[in-house]
Amino acid sequence: MVFTQSFPDFVYLNGEIFPAVEAKISIFDRGFLFGDGVYEVMSQKQGVFFRKAHHLSRLKQSLEALQIKFDAENLFSDIPALLSAAGLSTSDCLLYIQITRGIAPRQHAFPSEITPTVMMYAWPKSLPEINSTLAKVVVQEEFRWSRCDIKSTSLLGNVMANQHAYIQGSYETLLSRAGVITEASHCNVFFVKDGTVFTHPANNFILNGITRQAVLDLCIRKEIPIAEIGLRSDEIYSVDEAFLTGTSTQVMAISHIDNKVIGKGLPGEITKALQMAFGEEKRKLGELE
Amino acid sequence: MVFTQSFPDFVYLNGEIFPAVEAKISIFDRGFLFGDGVYEVMSQKQGVFFRKAHHLSRLKQSLEALQIKFDAENLFSDIPALLSAAGLSTSDCLLYIQITRGIAPRQHAFPSEITPTVMMYAWPKSLPEINSTLAKVVVQEEFRWSRCDIKSTSLLGNVMANQHAYIQGSYETLLSRAGVITEASHCNVFFVKDGTVFTHPANNFILNGITRQAVLDLCIRKEIPIAEIGLRSDEIYSVDEAFLTGTSTQVMAISHIDNKVIGKGLPGEITKALQMAFGEEKRKLGELE
Repeated sequence: MVFTQSFPDFVYLNGEIFPAVEAKISIFDRGFLFGDGVYEVMSQKQGVFFRKAHHLSRLKQSLEALQIKFDAENLFSDIPALLSAAGLSTSDCLLYIQITRGIAPRQHAFPSEITPTVMMYAWPKSLPEINSTLAKVVVQEEFRWSRCDIKSTSLLGNVMANQHAYIQGSYETLLSRAGVITEASHCNVFFVKDGTVFTHPANNFILNGITRQAVLDLCIRKEIPIAEIGLRSDEIYSVDEAFLTGTSTQVMAISHIDNKVIGKGLPGEITKALQMAFGEEKRKLGELE
Repeated sequence: MVFTQSFPDFVYLNGEIFPAVEAKISIFDRGFLFGDGVYEVMSQKQGVFFRKAHHLSRLKQSLEALQIKFDAENLFSDIPALLSAAGLSTSDCLLYIQITRGIAPRQHAFPSEITPTVMMYAWPKSLPEINSTLAKVVVQEEFRWSRCDIKSTSLLGNVMANQHAYIQGSYETLLSRAGVITEASHCNVFFVKDGTVFTHPANNFILNGITRQAVLDLCIRKEIPIAEIGLRSDEIYSVDEAFLTGTSTQVMAISHIDNKVIGKGLPGEITKALQMAFGEEKRKLGELE
């Protein structure tokens, strides 16, 4: 992984659009003091956001879990104005959305009347139809909280887990909770064994990724057997195939886990079929609009 | 608990002092995007910060754990200028310090060259020599991460645990990890049983509070037996005494756990002795200067 990211040109902040360098928030924002916020990342291809309704629905769930009172639906109607200002209305791009509880004097418990801070920005990014990157991953003992189902900005655990991979030249860290692989630092993980696709159930130990959901839907459509069961960390080295999913990761084949080759070290048959089906799904969505 | 906090007048931000309303940071600060930062809170009484060297040492440990390269020693030498601007040079006050990794395009893993963001503010607060508040507390299953030893700003778990107490009219939530009480959302917790003071050992499941350390030192000085052992959550309702410790909480007696009266529902003998010794220690430190 390399640091290829750059700053976007424009940022939407509380209803206004600013040049990125002018987009500033109070140091009393609870997003800054407590990591008290939620976020989403969506990808646009051929002028269409992939599974936008799913992202909106998950955003609402995260807000609900934290009791942040905010009209996410209304926010989504402001996306076109931001894209227009950024010159990305119909361009392939990624969109980042963050909502924090808002500004208040520092105290852990939160006031019931507080205005959330809302921030969004988009940057050009054309995701390939098929992600041809081969991921090396490493395994680490889980140390994050047990509410991974909330897409919150208290992400230090995820940062540390991702850094753990990065310094080893790996793309991701798979997390092992009590001996069971749950997910990765910013991706979900799937394994293929004897023709069945395994992934951890969407409980409080994982973030139920939108791409994860799309892949499960594709498995059903393609009649590939699914088992929403977490594999034990000692089982994963001998699987036939493994892959990661995520909004910008899409469907990425895993070649190595802890330096051990998985399958033939190349995308397996089921992984390839799902990569193609996923790419097709995105393209078709674009054509439908 | 009530919302008595107000905003301070001045904020120190990256070496400069601003009126609080002008203290703003980039939305690309990793403190805002990832909760990627650390903090400290210190109390000044009679012109002296209580155990300042301990706070500095812990801040260094937190920075080290997150590999944030920053000269905390140097920052501490800027505290007098902030206090002077705020008119609090010799006043009883609390000081909040936050250091985040700094500003970068959003990506979980962090660049090795990045300038940390540093923020501090102080506000007048005269802590009583003895905290006469009686705390009601509730117990909740632990759901935070297992690196509670790092004083990080990814505090959403602590916020949720504290809110859990707040909505029930309680001061704190005690956290039970695998059936053992570790600490509270922003305090450490102690129990007294048959003359022995129990508290969870300072491992990765608790934040090793400066007040916690001071109380343990006072126990040794007063020859009160200590056991750094976490009590089981079914043992705590029948203890003789219980109390919380923290920088602004100081030593606060617990009267109720989950609505069950602890001891006589008043500060017990050992709690009172430690409250007095703690108050004395703070006063003496002030007189020494």
